[in-house]
Amino acid sequence: MSGETENPGEIRPGGRTARTRDAVCRSTLQVLAELGYAELTVERVAERSGVHKSTIYRRWGGIDGLVVDALAFAVDDDWEPDLSGNVEANLMEFARMALASFADPVYGPTHTAVVAAAFQSDRAVDAVHRFFADRFGRTSMIITRAIENGELPQNTDPEAVIRALMAPIYFRLFISRQSVTDVDLEQAVQAALAAALAGVFENQERR
Amino acid sequence: MSGETENPGEIRPGGRTARTRDAVCRSTLQVLAELGYAELTVERVAERSGVHKSTIYRRWGGIDGLVVDALAFAVDDDWEPDLSGNVEANLMEFARMALASFADPVYGPTHTAVVAAAFQSDRAVDAVHRFFADRFGRTSMIITRAIENGELPQNTDPEAVIRALMAPIYFRLFISRQSVTDVDLEQAVQAALAAALAGVFENQERR
Repeated sequence: MSGETENPGEIRPGGRTARTRDAVCRSTLQVLAELGYAELTVERVAERSGVHKSTIYRRWGGIDGLVVDALAFAVDDDWEPDLSGNVEANLMEFARMALASFADPVYGPTHTAVVAAAFQSDRAVDAVHRFFADRFGRTSMIITRAIENGELPQNTDPEAVIRALMAPIYFRLFISRQSVTDVDLEQAVQAALAAALAGVFENQERR
Repeated sequence: MSGETENPGEIRPGGRTARTRDAVCRSTLQVLAELGYAELTVERVAERSGVHKSTIYRRWGGIDGLVVDALAFAVDDDWEPDLSGNVEANLMEFARMALASFADPVYGPTHTAVVAAAFQSDRAVDAVHRFFADRFGRTSMIITRAIENGELPQNTDPEAVIRALMAPIYFRLFISRQSVTDVDLEQAVQAALAAALAGVFENQERR
């Protein structure tokens, strides 16, 4: 990432590297939001960002690399789940936020593009793994807190509950291609909780 | 679909139409299985099937149309779920069969290709809708039988239970890109059943 000397007038190469990434990621996100994945080309990102095509190819490899880094760029935040309610309220709040994020004009198309790219690119699969590890990790706090409060069984696997909650939502959006209503979110929350309360997600010596 | 007169020596135009579809769909499935979606071209299908490129473009429109029809062709069967066990055993049997079908060298890549194509093609979205309506419809018998047997609440929505069962499996395969083990299948069955027994999937006047 260092050693960029194309522009000798630049006196802060570290700062320039960061600014280049910023410009390229923002341009990628803009193109995804405005034109969609099918219209995303390195040429277009180069034009918008003012970063030379050869630099983009060298540093990001191509479209997949751009999409992957743009997703990392877009989610590189300090988000933590709201823990102010009981477990049911906190899960519902999270599910609503997750669904809303798909409708966000920048974040939505980027996340969708990475999920789509994972069908053809191992690099995108890695990005997807990192993304869900991060999100599941942060969201697990809702379940950890619920266990502490005695709302869920002691050995409940937090990630399993979050996955059970999110799977039907992703399934509707990206697999069966059905709309997701607030009623669907509520059903997903209730189903995940019922299973957790029944001990289905308890970590134990597996048979 | 009728009125094909390119080959006047053909005396059964209906039969020829069916044979053309058969050849084209089989070739599409072969290419998908052997080379994958990225290598699927109309030229390649034309070459393998012996059906002229222009006929394929005219009748199927292009790659998306081929994939969509090949999926319909591949699932055009008399499959019905096994109802010989209790609801838990029948769901587990179905989940195992569904997972195995993704590993099938013909069916697996075709189903995956249609799910992937739906990210970019409305035609593929329609195919996905028809596919799941068909599969959910047939599989619902497991739940209908369970209700008759008093294993599940009277007003349980069969499709909701099947979706709850399959969503985590599709989520792992196509979204979070994690492997699916027999333990995961069992957890999916137990979670769907626990939610159904708790009444989460009961059809009722919705609030």
